Amino acid sequence: MEEKNEITSMKLDHIGIAVKNIEESLKFYSDALGLNLEGIEIVKEQKVKTAFLLLGSTHIELLEATETDSPIAKFIEKRGEGLHHIAIKVENIEEHISKLDEKDIKLIDKEPKTGAGNKKIAFVHPKSTSGVLLELCEDMPDIELPIL
Amino acid sequence: MEEKNEITSMKLDHIGIAVKNIEESLKFYSDALGLNLEGIEIVKEQKVKTAFLLLGSTHIELLEATETDSPIAKFIEKRGEGLHHIAIKVENIEEHISKLDEKDIKLIDKEPKTGAGNKKIAFVHPKSTSGVLLELCEDMPDIELPIL
Repeated sequence: MEEKNEITSMKLDHIGIAVKNIEESLKFYSDALGLNLEGIEIVKEQKVKTAFLLLGSTHIELLEATETDSPIAKFIEKRGEGLHHIAIKVENIEEHISKLDEKDIKLIDKEPKTGAGNKKIAFVHPKSTSGVLLELCEDMPDIELPIL
Repeated sequence: MEEKNEITSMKLDHIGIAVKNIEESLKFYSDALGLNLEGIEIVKEQKVKTAFLLLGSTHIELLEATETDSPIAKFIEKRGEGLHHIAIKVENIEEHISKLDEKDIKLIDKEPKTGAGNKKIAFVHPKSTSGVLLELCEDMPDIELPIL
């Protein structure tokens, strides 16, 4: 198998935007700008409602708090609505985490956790990224069931 | 000619990140994360130094103030380093501006201005975008010289 270049295999998965009210924000992003709404879902464990919109080969994720102690509610209280995080899709998240850790990059997650859509995700600390909350994510392959 | 769907023709051109020092920030984005540095240039009229890094089919733009009254210096003073703006590439910027204007979207530029790389650019006001400074941009075709 040809060895993949880890640099070229990285791509922007999505840009997360913290909003007060998804319906209100969709008036701009969907109705006025014309981006295609892909779906709205509640991510209970993260206390957010999310809406994904297609933008070329990447996505915009609108994030609305579902509870007052949601990280999104805290973010908006402190900084107002706006750009919240970016997510980069990689092919071997564990390898990327180790490499960043070896280079003394501050990580929020030293081991990947499971995010929405059964993805493996890990956050890099804004202290190491010039203030950007940066998510690494990796799609999980479909589980292969043994043939009985 | 087949009519183009304006929705699918939009794509994310770049994500702008306000940083204090490009060389410092490249230690993460280039050295540790492994993104490919495409170039560094000074945009004198905007009082910034910029570095572009390739990320899949889009780019990360690091922005450093070159003067104390640069918009980037003011942004960092107020909010610290971090995500600053996103830029969406469109095919007919004037049409997009008119459409947004008709829908009462607040625009910073009602007419496109010339940005770096001879692009036409126009900013949408964060008031209409849930707090996001959003740039629309369009590549300008190469000027065709008459055959003498």
